[in-house]
Amino acid sequence: MEKRYDIAIIGSGPAGLSAALNAKIRNKSFIIFGNKNLSSKLQKAPKVNNYLGFYGVTGEELKEKFIDHIKSMDINIQEERVNNIYAMGEYFTLMVNEKMYEAKAVILATGVEYTKALEGEEEFLGKGVGYCATCDAPLYKDKVVSIISYNKEGEKDASYVSELAKSVYYIPMYRDVYNINDKVNIIEDKPIKIKGNQKVEKLVLKDNELETDGVFLLKDSISPKQLVPGLKILDGHVEVDRNMQTSIKGCFAAGDCVGKPYQYIKAAGEGNIASLSAVAYLDSLK
Amino acid sequence: MEKRYDIAIIGSGPAGLSAALNAKIRNKSFIIFGNKNLSSKLQKAPKVNNYLGFYGVTGEELKEKFIDHIKSMDINIQEERVNNIYAMGEYFTLMVNEKMYEAKAVILATGVEYTKALEGEEEFLGKGVGYCATCDAPLYKDKVVSIISYNKEGEKDASYVSELAKSVYYIPMYRDVYNINDKVNIIEDKPIKIKGNQKVEKLVLKDNELETDGVFLLKDSISPKQLVPGLKILDGHVEVDRNMQTSIKGCFAAGDCVGKPYQYIKAAGEGNIASLSAVAYLDSLK
Repeated sequence: MEKRYDIAIIGSGPAGLSAALNAKIRNKSFIIFGNKNLSSKLQKAPKVNNYLGFYGVTGEELKEKFIDHIKSMDINIQEERVNNIYAMGEYFTLMVNEKMYEAKAVILATGVEYTKALEGEEEFLGKGVGYCATCDAPLYKDKVVSIISYNKEGEKDASYVSELAKSVYYIPMYRDVYNINDKVNIIEDKPIKIKGNQKVEKLVLKDNELETDGVFLLKDSISPKQLVPGLKILDGHVEVDRNMQTSIKGCFAAGDCVGKPYQYIKAAGEGNIASLSAVAYLDSLK
Repeated sequence: MEKRYDIAIIGSGPAGLSAALNAKIRNKSFIIFGNKNLSSKLQKAPKVNNYLGFYGVTGEELKEKFIDHIKSMDINIQEERVNNIYAMGEYFTLMVNEKMYEAKAVILATGVEYTKALEGEEEFLGKGVGYCATCDAPLYKDKVVSIISYNKEGEKDASYVSELAKSVYYIPMYRDVYNINDKVNIIEDKPIKIKGNQKVEKLVLKDNELETDGVFLLKDSISPKQLVPGLKILDGHVEVDRNMQTSIKGCFAAGDCVGKPYQYIKAAGEGNIASLSAVAYLDSLK
């Protein structure tokens, strides 16, 4: 068991980073989960004109500014994917594959999921469809597993699953050089739908059809509803009040996941509020 | 009568500027009232570490970045003080001394008033105490007026009032070279309280006592309650929802005036939201 942090921040976009700055300044122990590249959305932005202080920057340039800032403050991003967060009353347990973390307060800054659900994805969720391949791997001993991954981290997961499963298909939704276990079959094709009767039987691709017992979708952002059981969602976004407090005590949220407008400066501003609210919450526990 | 703007923004701190960026990008006609120095609070900040993207900057440096940004986008700040804003139904009328402006939507970004009320200020408000010397000047023809000013712009107001009043005392709350009408008596002293019976009779200073018929307090930020009659205030701040909509249709607010935390990035984020909400409101009028 790791130590219990004051604050766990989930997400390394502008909301998560802004929250981290304030946790650091307020001298709280914290961990921020995310990606060294911060946010794929930010990275791809061609031109940003409305982040006050920076005119006509690319998302890439803004990203570099953000990285400089957190480096100057000795903030390191933990490159792990949080699969589930459980409210335990006085604290939260965060599940990261086979590891566990604990924190007294949580700030969700997970962004929004832009990828549309696959046909059959919702229908078969829990009946062969899942979002954490490593968590559910034991269920697929000697079975056939298909992993649709939106990011390079999925390669590690696929390699891991291939040690238990009979066979693993890996369908990358990105282009790169793959660093993956030889037992994994890499299939470069476009997923169309998931078919089955009571449970998953087939993954239909544009040019192929795979017989499979399970389909895992490894997306860049997990929906907060799946991440935190019991969290109140309103119109597809995490419900928060003006202090960025969610429906769960000690759990705060900021950025795109709490609603439109999907804007960097709005996310950063909300991260600031969420962090200071978390600090006030921690102080109230004393 | 000037043209009717789409949006009028009151205040040139981070909230007002961020709102202006988005009004510009969304191609709305707008006017932003404020100060070429942006915000006296910002200017005085010794060190800012939690405005994501800038590490270890002074308020002055951040101010320069903001000025560069708005200049690059051809945004000019109108250096006038708005005294009152009246909701007319389909539009708003903004009173600026003897001038009037009109706008379909208003964004309040007036900051918070840090100066504590003077003893007697609230008691005699409307009974000799006021916040707009030029507006009320006609009431003080051949009378004695005292003007306590927190900023240099008060000098113009005092000069103007001195043309009508019997005499004018000017109590500057700042240090500078005064550019003011000879008829005005400049008194460098600390105001203590306002005294009177039914109405103002005396202004008590630390080392002096002035017989006066009226006392005007020219503060850097006017309280939104005085600015917009009928605006709903909650715990001393403008009440807004998550879209930065106030209790008055078409009137939005952002930054310190809507509540804590008093932070630059939070203000900038809210200015962004307020502006995009105003744009959506304008589109709904079509």
